[in-house]
Amino acid sequence: MLEIPYSNYRLTVRLELANKPGMFARVAAVLAEERANLGAVDIVSATKTRMVRDVTFDVQDEAHGERVLARLNDLPDVAVLSASDRIFLLHLGGKISVQGKFPVNTRNLLSMVYTPGVGRVSQAIAKDRSKVYAFTSKSNSVAVVTDGSAVLGLGNLGPEAALPVMEGKVMLFKELAGIDAWPICLATQEPDEIVRVVQAIAPGFGAINLEDIGAPRCFEIERRLKASLDLPVMHDDQHGTAVVILAALTNALRVTGKQLDHVRVVVNGLGAAGTACCRMLLAAGVSHLVGCDKEGIILSGEAERMRACRGDLEPCLTRGKPAGTLRDALKGADVFIGLSVGHLLTAEDLELMAADRIVFAMANPDPEVPPEIAMTHCRIFATGRSDYPNQINNALAFPGIFRGALDVQVREINEAMKLAAAQAIAHAIPDGALSEDYIIPSLFDKEVVPRVARAVAAAARDTGVARRRAKLGPSFIE
Amino acid sequence: MLEIPYSNYRLTVRLELANKPGMFARVAAVLAEERANLGAVDIVSATKTRMVRDVTFDVQDEAHGERVLARLNDLPDVAVLSASDRIFLLHLGGKISVQGKFPVNTRNLLSMVYTPGVGRVSQAIAKDRSKVYAFTSKSNSVAVVTDGSAVLGLGNLGPEAALPVMEGKVMLFKELAGIDAWPICLATQEPDEIVRVVQAIAPGFGAINLEDIGAPRCFEIERRLKASLDLPVMHDDQHGTAVVILAALTNALRVTGKQLDHVRVVVNGLGAAGTACCRMLLAAGVSHLVGCDKEGIILSGEAERMRACRGDLEPCLTRGKPAGTLRDALKGADVFIGLSVGHLLTAEDLELMAADRIVFAMANPDPEVPPEIAMTHCRIFATGRSDYPNQINNALAFPGIFRGALDVQVREINEAMKLAAAQAIAHAIPDGALSEDYIIPSLFDKEVVPRVARAVAAAARDTGVARRRAKLGPSFIE
Repeated sequence: MLEIPYSNYRLTVRLELANKPGMFARVAAVLAEERANLGAVDIVSATKTRMVRDVTFDVQDEAHGERVLARLNDLPDVAVLSASDRIFLLHLGGKISVQGKFPVNTRNLLSMVYTPGVGRVSQAIAKDRSKVYAFTSKSNSVAVVTDGSAVLGLGNLGPEAALPVMEGKVMLFKELAGIDAWPICLATQEPDEIVRVVQAIAPGFGAINLEDIGAPRCFEIERRLKASLDLPVMHDDQHGTAVVILAALTNALRVTGKQLDHVRVVVNGLGAAGTACCRMLLAAGVSHLVGCDKEGIILSGEAERMRACRGDLEPCLTRGKPAGTLRDALKGADVFIGLSVGHLLTAEDLELMAADRIVFAMANPDPEVPPEIAMTHCRIFATGRSDYPNQINNALAFPGIFRGALDVQVREINEAMKLAAAQAIAHAIPDGALSEDYIIPSLFDKEVVPRVARAVAAAARDTGVARRRAKLGPSFIE
Repeated sequence: MLEIPYSNYRLTVRLELANKPGMFARVAAVLAEERANLGAVDIVSATKTRMVRDVTFDVQDEAHGERVLARLNDLPDVAVLSASDRIFLLHLGGKISVQGKFPVNTRNLLSMVYTPGVGRVSQAIAKDRSKVYAFTSKSNSVAVVTDGSAVLGLGNLGPEAALPVMEGKVMLFKELAGIDAWPICLATQEPDEIVRVVQAIAPGFGAINLEDIGAPRCFEIERRLKASLDLPVMHDDQHGTAVVILAALTNALRVTGKQLDHVRVVVNGLGAAGTACCRMLLAAGVSHLVGCDKEGIILSGEAERMRACRGDLEPCLTRGKPAGTLRDALKGADVFIGLSVGHLLTAEDLELMAADRIVFAMANPDPEVPPEIAMTHCRIFATGRSDYPNQINNALAFPGIFRGALDVQVREINEAMKLAAAQAIAHAIPDGALSEDYIIPSLFDKEVVPRVARAVAAAARDTGVARRRAKLGPSFIE
């Protein structure tokens, strides 16, 4: 039996045990036999004869959890008092809150932050609208907007079900980049309506992060918002993912010694992320790119399948007019990037590729090729999962991109800024430290966000979309 | 010269003084002569010969501030190093922030609050949408929505200029009621568009607070949102104000011994607040009510002027079909409630009213009648200002109303809940403590919000609009 990959099912169980030597070892033995990964253990209370402990462990699914509980309860001198699910417990009441930056506990303060004093600030902004950045939360706020149509890999779950995901994103915005984001979950999936709503709420926010909006609607929505708003707008499922993939590819090529403009790259899956990934790779200098979907290699003139990946990619994708299946595309390819579905490729398929092959299998939760196979048949392998080396996680990109964008008040997030972000992420790992198993910096590497933010801000200035100079003095993060 | 009423202009001045006895007294003397109310004094640095101090004081307006600065600078051995405006300083970077309820600083936590773990919570909500209240911030969040068309008393300043006011309101929501509110400033003033936008963003919020939206559009917008959303929606400028006025009137009548259903009440100004106030007074049992606007007493059939106060008030407002001017209406009236403009009434006008007259002059910043006059010609006088006794401030109502509404997940905020809120605010002052100068509890009285919240929740249950029982155990505020 495989180790449980994710702490998706995490139980905290309150046990009453006889207070004598060896009791906890029996509990630990059951968990080990069940491969239920033991986490925290706390003592709740103890008497001379009894001890109550909270034991936290991961299980595979609900049935597995129930079996483990039954086995624990069957142990002599052990009783299960209660069991709770850590993930749901963590979500009780929501994960985010709003704080005033200082207390309003005197009449004097009240009269400054609210009427009548605040009226002077309002009048100053009414006179010069650009002052809204100096005197309000707009300068540091991001609306995380979803219509709930493509929640994680789970599908069209609706806006309420999307809210916990958006709150998680809001937490990451704060934790990683000090940004005040707020979730906006929309009761509409109509592109026209979404565009109008986001335009309407834009004055209060410094940037718009579109999230978990399904393809192809996401392309039109993002394009129209970028064209109509004087604010940075980014659909993270597209561009955040594309930026991290480019960063990972950059480092994979540093390790293998191959050149970006010489490698043959196959991208499989041309939804939101796949399309953005193709566009990003082409912008970065990839010359040999084949895009596939479930029907095989996308061919020129096959309008039905091209629609999803936008007209501007067509000339590049059809270079040399390949035709055939994904397997045909893989022959001699240096790089495979999967943004599709799990269990698509076998060891034999990988062997069709060139030597020193690089495989990024991003399908969630099961990669396009089982990691156990890929790791023995590729030079470099990466996934979206945290339980293997080289996790490609868009949380490496969006915090720094938005941090940089807000810091210099950009008008838009353009290709140069995303390329700069990818390079900053890649070069957060110095040459000496790079290896097959370390092409992506850690999400918790405190260097990454400031690096990305500085690179994005510099690219914004260079391309004329920054409205102010970066903050002087110590970095925002300090 | 009057004392400066509000700290609308508050300066913090850095002074360099000779370090010798009596120096600060000279500064204080100038401030006293200028009636510039001295606030905090801090020592920044000191040497044997020089001392640098930050001195904070209130001035009347910019010209007054400059005169004070010049006089300070002219003092021997005193130099003004810098001067800054406290209100603008307080607003730098905005007044609110978002926090995760716990840090996300391990991969393990990340996998629970974000993908993949959060997916289980999303799926649970997708299966049973009511679970969104248990597992997200919806249960405690309020959207504070404005179109910037009626910002404080300052007019149509637009959404950016409204943002600092909305942030102030967000601070009060948190400080007074523990509620996580977020400002939504709209780039449209079209009722249809506003209704659609609020409907679209509703899934992520537990309640909607409409704010600073001008009359008569506010009536239609609120009505349509209440009808279409399964959430509490309240336009605070209307109902918050009306609730606090009813509370104040209740206590004023307790002091004077008059009865609500016998007193003759004149409401002047039939905008958003005035109209709601009329409706609330009628719902509470007032029988003799005259509504006036700037053209005088509103008469039946005068469609142009009735439009602003909605058809459902017409039969009551025209009781006995009074006609004539505001002064005609005042003859023999027990209560005057002004929600109009300053400097409208004289001592002679007040003397037209009955004995033991009650005057609430809410116009901002100058009340309908100068306080100095009113205080000697009325039994009870109240304003919206903090520098006289009896401040009628809607911040006494909205935090508790929304707290109660969220606690029991109401479907709407109805008349019974608002009446209950008014009674709870009024009876926060016990009989023995009531007096002409104390008919309204303090905004910082920690008892008020829990009282109001409990009363609102109880009324919601009694009227069948509560979706859950109130939280058990200790009050939310603890």
